[in-house]
Amino acid sequence: MKLQYFLELIGTTFFAMSGAIVANKKSRPDWFGVTFISFITSIGGGSIRDILLGCYPLVWIKDINIMYAIMLGVILTSLFYNRILKMRKMMFLFDTLGVAMFTIIGTEKAMNFGVNPVIAAIMGMFSAVMGGVLRDVLTNEIPILFRKELYSSLCLIGATFYLILDFFNINRSTDFILSILLILSLRIGAVRYDWAFPKFIKGGEEDFQEH
Amino acid sequence: MKLQYFLELIGTTFFAMSGAIVANKKSRPDWFGVTFISFITSIGGGSIRDILLGCYPLVWIKDINIMYAIMLGVILTSLFYNRILKMRKMMFLFDTLGVAMFTIIGTEKAMNFGVNPVIAAIMGMFSAVMGGVLRDVLTNEIPILFRKELYSSLCLIGATFYLILDFFNINRSTDFILSILLILSLRIGAVRYDWAFPKFIKGGEEDFQEH
Amino acid sequence: MKLQYFLELIGTTFFAMSGAIVANKKSRPDWFGVTFISFITSIGGGSIRDILLGCYPLVWIKDINIMYAIMLGVILTSLFYNRILKMRKMMFLFDTLGVAMFTIIGTEKAMNFGVNPVIAAIMGMFSAVMGGVLRDVLTNEIPILFRKELYSSLCLIGATFYLILDFFNINRSTDFILSILLILSLRIGAVRYDWAFPKFIKGGEEDFQEH
Repeated sequence: MKLQYFLELIGTTFFAMSGAIVANKKSRPDWFGVTFISFITSIGGGSIRDILLGCYPLVWIKDINIMYAIMLGVILTSLFYNRILKMRKMMFLFDTLGVAMFTIIGTEKAMNFGVNPVIAAIMGMFSAVMGGVLRDVLTNEIPILFRKELYSSLCLIGATFYLILDFFNINRSTDFILSILLILSLRIGAVRYDWAFPKFIKGGEEDFQEH
Repeated sequence: MKLQYFLELIGTTFFAMSGAIVANKKSRPDWFGVTFISFITSIGGGSIRDILLGCYPLVWIKDINIMYAIMLGVILTSLFYNRILKMRKMMFLFDTLGVAMFTIIGTEKAMNFGVNPVIAAIMGMFSAVMGGVLRDVLTNEIPILFRKELYSSLCLIGATFYLILDFFNINRSTDFILSILLILSLRIGAVRYDWAFPKFIKGGEEDFQEH
Repeated sequence: MKLQYFLELIGTTFFAMSGAIVANKKSRPDWFGVTFISFITSIGGGSIRDILLGCYPLVWIKDINIMYAIMLGVILTSLFYNRILKMRKMMFLFDTLGVAMFTIIGTEKAMNFGVNPVIAAIMGMFSAVMGGVLRDVLTNEIPILFRKELYSSLCLIGATFYLILDFFNINRSTDFILSILLILSLRIGAVRYDWAFPKFIKGGEEDFQEH
């Protein structure tokens, strides 16, 4: 469990780093703006999951180390900005590992709350992607969901895979590692081979009544 | 009560259908994106109401049938997309009935929580419109509130009407049906006769200090 | 305590007034739209703070006077719109006083919840600025955070100052007033002398993997 906690902090630092890099690309905000966005990106997904579940106190409010992990990420990004940009493949790997880990941890947390597995898988996906969605909404971007949908759906697939193995009583650590490896492989495959989901139906220029 | 539950599920399916149609019009996302947006549209309003009230567990987390009703809506939309677009008037009718129903149910739920009737009416309106607002925010649209304000205000009027009849001890079923009919009539009137609220004051090109 | 409650209501009315003025500038919505946005601006920050802390019931749901203070603000704005725009400096003063007060009250509330002071300062800042962020998201604007970052950071500085004096057991009223005066002075200074935080690092046209 201590190892997992340590990994979560490292994952948070990586989230904060990629959050800071993305934030910095939008209209070049100052230190405060970058830190704020990096913070929201890092804690947003888990917060939305916990608020939806009514699971209080929120992780980052209970445990101040998460805040320090985020600040570390922002400072590292500022110190080694150009070097980090060059280590693109390594960052991609760490980022995906973080995303995969947060997906499975979020799914587990929801299951421990006694929700239906379908809901648990959604909560796992939310944990991993909602921070990025909040960031996109705050920076007035089209959320990543619509640009690279595969990203979120791979989390959902990974969470489902985890729950299926769990249903068959596979050992927790094995299940954990296999599910993370699945998300990692799928994401590498998706980027390399340009996988895409089928489009929904193409409609005409209808003006359907909205709500 | 069983009838109402059944109606709520049907209403959810209609919400999901109109959500899927609107989602599909924006940048033509894939299956996953359409389902995601349709899901947020369907559960967003009720979730915001319950989170604001601190009323846990959220309805869709407690009752998995809501998820199935949403999935049904997405699948029906994909199967009968063009036919649905042609049945515009019928869809408008069902959509408005759904909106009206969710408004009144949301108002009742807030009242059962013991809040002030003014707050209850706002919660009723939130239940019906916040899903659409979230959808618009996620798809980077100007929220519907600013495009067709009447839409939300009719929900508020309907909720207020419900609370007034309730205050005078009108039978719950009668009150429920009358309030829904009022919202339905007002919306039909608003669309047919192009009703609009008075504009707020027109200001100059001031640069007032914002926060 | 009664004085503070009275000041809070006045602060809410000022928040609602500046909210209504900003809302009216965006695509000139009708009465309902302006009231809605003004309402969200006024209660948004405190609601986000309380939802994150899990502190129920939300202040405006518990105390209907807050709603009346908001309505008063909207009505006053509509009656004296042009006169208010001319009293720009006085409005700036009152607005900043309101912001400063909500920051410190939010910080205190979080401290009473027993959170880490770092978290409490963030909650204080959230109380003051998140209403404006929600308003900007709803009206599809780049959030104020990215346009005038100093605004939020001054709240964070004021909250930190409050917590430091509190740590040294300074009398609560003295601490309260000094912290508010600090935020006020900093904001006047920031506007007059065009203070700015250093920019984060300038990066190239990298296409770093986002999440």
